[in-house]
Amino acid sequence: MARATAVSDFLSGLFDRRWIGGDKLEAQPIEALCDALLSTGGQVSGRQIASAILRRYESLKAEEKLAFFHHLNDALDLDATAVAELAARYQDEPTPAHFAALSKAAEPRRQELFRRLNQAEGATAALVRMRVDLLRLVKAHPELKRTDMDLTHLLRSWFNRGFLVLRQISWDTPASILEKIVAYEAVHEIQDWDDLRRRLHPPDRRCFAFFHPAMPDEPLIFVEVALTQEVPGSIQKVLAEDRAPLQIEEARTAVFYSISNCQRGLAGISFGNLLIKQVASELAQALPQLTNFVTLSPIPGLRKWTEAQDLPTLPFDELAAHYLLEAKRSDGLPTDPVARFHLGNGAAVLEVHADADASEKGDAQSYGVMVNYHYDLIQTEKNHEDFALQHSIAASKPIKAKARSALAAITRNSAP
Amino acid sequence: MARATAVSDFLSGLFDRRWIGGDKLEAQPIEALCDALLSTGGQVSGRQIASAILRRYESLKAEEKLAFFHHLNDALDLDATAVAELAARYQDEPTPAHFAALSKAAEPRRQELFRRLNQAEGATAALVRMRVDLLRLVKAHPELKRTDMDLTHLLRSWFNRGFLVLRQISWDTPASILEKIVAYEAVHEIQDWDDLRRRLHPPDRRCFAFFHPAMPDEPLIFVEVALTQEVPGSIQKVLAEDRAPLQIEEARTAVFYSISNCQRGLAGISFGNLLIKQVASELAQALPQLTNFVTLSPIPGLRKWTEAQDLPTLPFDELAAHYLLEAKRSDGLPTDPVARFHLGNGAAVLEVHADADASEKGDAQSYGVMVNYHYDLIQTEKNHEDFALQHSIAASKPIKAKARSALAAITRNSAP
Amino acid sequence: MARATAVSDFLSGLFDRRWIGGDKLEAQPIEALCDALLSTGGQVSGRQIASAILRRYESLKAEEKLAFFHHLNDALDLDATAVAELAARYQDEPTPAHFAALSKAAEPRRQELFRRLNQAEGATAALVRMRVDLLRLVKAHPELKRTDMDLTHLLRSWFNRGFLVLRQISWDTPASILEKIVAYEAVHEIQDWDDLRRRLHPPDRRCFAFFHPAMPDEPLIFVEVALTQEVPGSIQKVLAEDRAPLQIEEARTAVFYSISNCQRGLAGISFGNLLIKQVASELAQALPQLTNFVTLSPIPGLRKWTEAQDLPTLPFDELAAHYLLEAKRSDGLPTDPVARFHLGNGAAVLEVHADADASEKGDAQSYGVMVNYHYDLIQTEKNHEDFALQHSIAASKPIKAKARSALAAITRNSAP
Amino acid sequence: MARATAVSDFLSGLFDRRWIGGDKLEAQPIEALCDALLSTGGQVSGRQIASAILRRYESLKAEEKLAFFHHLNDALDLDATAVAELAARYQDEPTPAHFAALSKAAEPRRQELFRRLNQAEGATAALVRMRVDLLRLVKAHPELKRTDMDLTHLLRSWFNRGFLVLRQISWDTPASILEKIVAYEAVHEIQDWDDLRRRLHPPDRRCFAFFHPAMPDEPLIFVEVALTQEVPGSIQKVLAEDRAPLQIEEARTAVFYSISNCQRGLAGISFGNLLIKQVASELAQALPQLTNFVTLSPIPGLRKWTEAQDLPTLPFDELAAHYLLEAKRSDGLPTDPVARFHLGNGAAVLEVHADADASEKGDAQSYGVMVNYHYDLIQTEKNHEDFALQHSIAASKPIKAKARSALAAITRNSAP
Repeated sequence: MARATAVSDFLSGLFDRRWIGGDKLEAQPIEALCDALLSTGGQVSGRQIASAILRRYESLKAEEKLAFFHHLNDALDLDATAVAELAARYQDEPTPAHFAALSKAAEPRRQELFRRLNQAEGATAALVRMRVDLLRLVKAHPELKRTDMDLTHLLRSWFNRGFLVLRQISWDTPASILEKIVAYEAVHEIQDWDDLRRRLHPPDRRCFAFFHPAMPDEPLIFVEVALTQEVPGSIQKVLAEDRAPLQIEEARTAVFYSISNCQRGLAGISFGNLLIKQVASELAQALPQLTNFVTLSPIPGLRKWTEAQDLPTLPFDELAAHYLLEAKRSDGLPTDPVARFHLGNGAAVLEVHADADASEKGDAQSYGVMVNYHYDLIQTEKNHEDFALQHSIAASKPIKAKARSALAAITRNSAP
Repeated sequence: MARATAVSDFLSGLFDRRWIGGDKLEAQPIEALCDALLSTGGQVSGRQIASAILRRYESLKAEEKLAFFHHLNDALDLDATAVAELAARYQDEPTPAHFAALSKAAEPRRQELFRRLNQAEGATAALVRMRVDLLRLVKAHPELKRTDMDLTHLLRSWFNRGFLVLRQISWDTPASILEKIVAYEAVHEIQDWDDLRRRLHPPDRRCFAFFHPAMPDEPLIFVEVALTQEVPGSIQKVLAEDRAPLQIEEARTAVFYSISNCQRGLAGISFGNLLIKQVASELAQALPQLTNFVTLSPIPGLRKWTEAQDLPTLPFDELAAHYLLEAKRSDGLPTDPVARFHLGNGAAVLEVHADADASEKGDAQSYGVMVNYHYDLIQTEKNHEDFALQHSIAASKPIKAKARSALAAITRNSAP
Repeated sequence: MARATAVSDFLSGLFDRRWIGGDKLEAQPIEALCDALLSTGGQVSGRQIASAILRRYESLKAEEKLAFFHHLNDALDLDATAVAELAARYQDEPTPAHFAALSKAAEPRRQELFRRLNQAEGATAALVRMRVDLLRLVKAHPELKRTDMDLTHLLRSWFNRGFLVLRQISWDTPASILEKIVAYEAVHEIQDWDDLRRRLHPPDRRCFAFFHPAMPDEPLIFVEVALTQEVPGSIQKVLAEDRAPLQIEEARTAVFYSISNCQRGLAGISFGNLLIKQVASELAQALPQLTNFVTLSPIPGLRKWTEAQDLPTLPFDELAAHYLLEAKRSDGLPTDPVARFHLGNGAAVLEVHADADASEKGDAQSYGVMVNYHYDLIQTEKNHEDFALQHSIAASKPIKAKARSALAAITRNSAP
Repeated sequence: MARATAVSDFLSGLFDRRWIGGDKLEAQPIEALCDALLSTGGQVSGRQIASAILRRYESLKAEEKLAFFHHLNDALDLDATAVAELAARYQDEPTPAHFAALSKAAEPRRQELFRRLNQAEGATAALVRMRVDLLRLVKAHPELKRTDMDLTHLLRSWFNRGFLVLRQISWDTPASILEKIVAYEAVHEIQDWDDLRRRLHPPDRRCFAFFHPAMPDEPLIFVEVALTQEVPGSIQKVLAEDRAPLQIEEARTAVFYSISNCQRGLAGISFGNLLIKQVASELAQALPQLTNFVTLSPIPGLRKWTEAQDLPTLPFDELAAHYLLEAKRSDGLPTDPVARFHLGNGAAVLEVHADADASEKGDAQSYGVMVNYHYDLIQTEKNHEDFALQHSIAASKPIKAKARSALAAITRNSAP
């Protein structure tokens, strides 16, 4: 038990110091440590140097971190002249040796640095935290985007779907994980542990998260699911404190009512579509009575978009149908970010509901309207292709009717 | 139990087929599937296509595999002209956009293909197996080395030390893992389960292996350890069937007497040094009475090298000391591969023993001589640096004396 | 996952009904079911009947439960006439057959009933709950004590130390267990999950509980431990929200500041002494720097006892010392129940502190005075024997001095 | 890892000695230690004394063990005179106090001794081993049966079905468990690890065992199951080395072809019926395609019984059918012990097969004939009752026909 750990930490420290002469390490600037890490054969002392760099980084002040990233960005960049020459040489003579030289030159040395840093205990989580800093700095220092591209490239490779682990989150999950679920829930805030219990413990509730083996205590993304008979039209009803749980045999519908990313340092590396699909698959196997897989989703862009238009007064549901099907960005994709996510996954717009989210946030975003997206297992692939290639949006008949009705009113209104 | 799995496999297959229309997949050539995988957004149907490609690959005939690798090697290579142009442009104007374009162009598309293949269930193991084929083909088709470099690059990134898990292998380990230990032991063959039990079960024996989370049933490398009082000079004594186990309190020495790599598909990605070091660290913590960390190693190149020389008759131990300290390759490193490995790790040559390995193999390799390398925790780093920079070999006084004695005899012999 | 369970429950129910013809079971009175369970060979259908009885019991009304226990008490009692005869026969002729007959007759049939009930899934927990009812009924129906003796006898045998499992409770423990810790804490109430986190998560806090394998979700008893430098004199300081945790290397003292029994149905079966001793042993192994094992305990009987005496005004600590050493029950044991527990375990009275518990409860029980009992690993056994045989109380010199001072004041006061 | 254990063992020993003054313990005779254990409050030092007694017991010589058991049998027996008096007193006045006194007196003190011994670490397994000795001694010293009755009584209570854990045994089970399966298989010997692998690894094979939480490394009983299409008629075919495994989807029949008890010390405490029933239930849930649950069983008593009769030459299958249905002991139950077991569980005789077991043992027991017993989930309970109450044997039509045919031949033969 605890003894083993305490002794182990103590001896391990001693051992490492004896092995590498750690004190000297502590005295050097972080840039020198990075050089040392890149120049070692990467084996004997690499892990200790990597650990030292990551510990040092955590202790840097803001301006020192900026300097560190600029060092990576410039001193550890690729040498474009060399790349051009080696590319020409490979063009002339595509030998493995020339290929090797070109490949090596074309990869900025900071990529190898990140890979070697990743050897240390806890390094993966440390690199994800490092990217949180980097993303913030990129705003004021856009040139650092180059370093971010390299880090993102590696993180995407390491957080490959093949390495992710799906775990059910339940009331039997360790509290140390659950407190992170509370902290990371981004769609419908979890008030306290009683609220959390209501979302996890009843027999008609499920929650699943992806984890990475190198960060076993950190959920990457999680989805909360309600099992219902009908497709629900109100988040208040789904989350009501005093509701009676459904007998699991009577469930027909799985409602994905909240999806939250947990790691800002993994921004841009998308897990949501994979999670929904795998959870739908798990649920379909475990509960064959389920025939419907839908979301109950916010429409975060509705109010802002509406207020920028000159529209007649419309019923909220018709307004929302119109917005979801017709409001487009300049690239032809839907204006609404949540719509882009689910439609891009191959879902269809199924139904919209006024008075579905009575919270302040719901009113501020979308006048309280919410939408169900439908994951029809047979249509998903075709929907996805049509959306990807032609930007065409799959929608149910009622939605199309509501959108038509809205369009007619708008046309009437704009007629002279 | 089994039911869940059976149902799950069945439904999961159904689900996947419904989702993607798998039958069509099966009809297409593997190259078209690769194109499809590279052109998808990588999310909705990527996993199914990746699975289909890997299944297809396993069923290919030898010449079809060759064609597949040539496709990767040529059609999915980088475009060197484009790289040269983009490098020049980035040279002129090092913007993030130019960097992104250059980075993308400089990476052969087969790298992205391998990454996307890795999304599928069991893909990591499948890619490791794929490399076994590739390594065999590279011998007759050296141009395929380019593809192997890319695959190796990714495997090295994925099998980063930070992702490896050290597990003790014992008589409580599942038989399905243990049968792999039997199969993979490459130094001193394990005859049968009784022999295995003798190596794992006694209180003075240990075994440790590295695993990767994506291949939980496949050891990557393992080391067998004997705990002894003195530094041993005979592998027969270490492995004797009828020996009495040592009381663990009396152990002073940990002997690494066998290290075996398990995955030919990971050739060139070295885990051995990391494993020895971490196991030494674990043992030092668990058993503070241990003060000596040594190997009992073969000298595989001794006989072959000796027979190519014109040497006087020497005592075997002096011959071996001479060989280990003096026989060098053209690059200045030791001729003996096991010596290169341990000296490169920072070990020192401690002692040599005649009649140490009475097996046929032992005689054929080294006249039965074996060697102890010494992992002195304080000296390892310095030894490593001296060896890496100046090719200088750390050795104990007795070894140096034996080598001197041998040299004197040789000098006398070659004198006119 | 969930599927397996759902299917399993469904099929298992079906299976059981087919196997035994469950409908008939449901129609019979619980007494008839008990007869059926006692008359079966105990193998084929025993588990189903046992389950039916336990389900039926849970649904009984209060008066029906009373009738059920009276049935056990009377109809399933032993036959004293037979016992007397068989004892005489065994006395005459002590053969195994006579012994068997006497043993069988001397054990009330309800014991065998309880054993057979215990075959059912979840039965152990159900029997513990059943005893909660029984203990309540015994107050008004003291004759039921006979049935309680038999149930207690069996529970004591089943909750034997050899079957208990010690588990550390930490912030990594499942929430479903932790909510029971919150519910069962009986000494210093846990306000909410934040409070719980403060007791489990800091590096200088520990919590351990005993579990039984047949009730894996139900802690039986748990102890909360604070690691400190000095012996603490105030529970407020130990539990302060804003305290800085101690570096674990600096800890010298383990303070058992709260011990709570969780199962009223196991009243009278004592685990506390075993738990303290085993936790002390675990901590001593894990953290060799710990040299002091003490409690910070309430003195629940101090105020009530004081108010019944005619005492002069005394400093609270002297009053408490006097009470702990001098106030005795008619059987010669200390009046204070917590003192009886710890002194009975072989602890010594180490120190008393005024203003140690500022809560209302603390004031009401003991004017806010608390006491440290000392578990001196070398003295414990001797203390225990002296206390058990001669009722003599081990105490430190300061405590004895305070008690003497109190006694002097009392003597002066009572002098004419 | 190992360190923790080594340190823990060391400190724990130290701790215990300090706590109790262990050296003195070691000097006392085992009978005195038993008295000490019975006289302690059972809490502070009980575990140490219990451990000391169990260690001492293991070191006793044969005659010392006999003396120890005689001590338990005589000195720790009940006092029959007291029991008779207390029974009479309870008869007059059935108060709880009188009941308590009678209960205490009627239980031999050795029962409490066994319970207290069971507190020590590993004690349950030690007591089971102790009973192996006792059972052997009872043969020559039948008076010790009294002590055995008490030990059996407690073991039956502790190895209650409610405490047993069913675990699947597979090729993923630790080797340390599997070697016990090899050792304990009593019906069809497992030759070596390859043979074991053939019984566990193919997809159409299953194995399940009961374990007790206090003996987690020791299977109590296990059953081997083959999944087949048809009811098999030859054990050689079931175990053939070169057979092709069945696709699991095509399985319709679960064949229990071997059931082995593992613990001689638990002789007389039956787990077989419970195991078969629970495994059938598990399999029915996991593999709904299974519709048949049968055995392929030996007929161990056939040859011996036949040779004692004066029978005409009969076809082996008719002879076996006759034997199974007609050969009875004086108590009216079948002569064949395996038949008694399965028929007692509620199974029916389904079919007999000549040439079903070609081994020497098979020939020696039953001329190579084997039998299928049928566990029809709907009939089992009724069969069990009919067998238990009227000794009537359920059998299929073909079996009855064969038995009739045999009877006709016998009648003809014995006719003058």
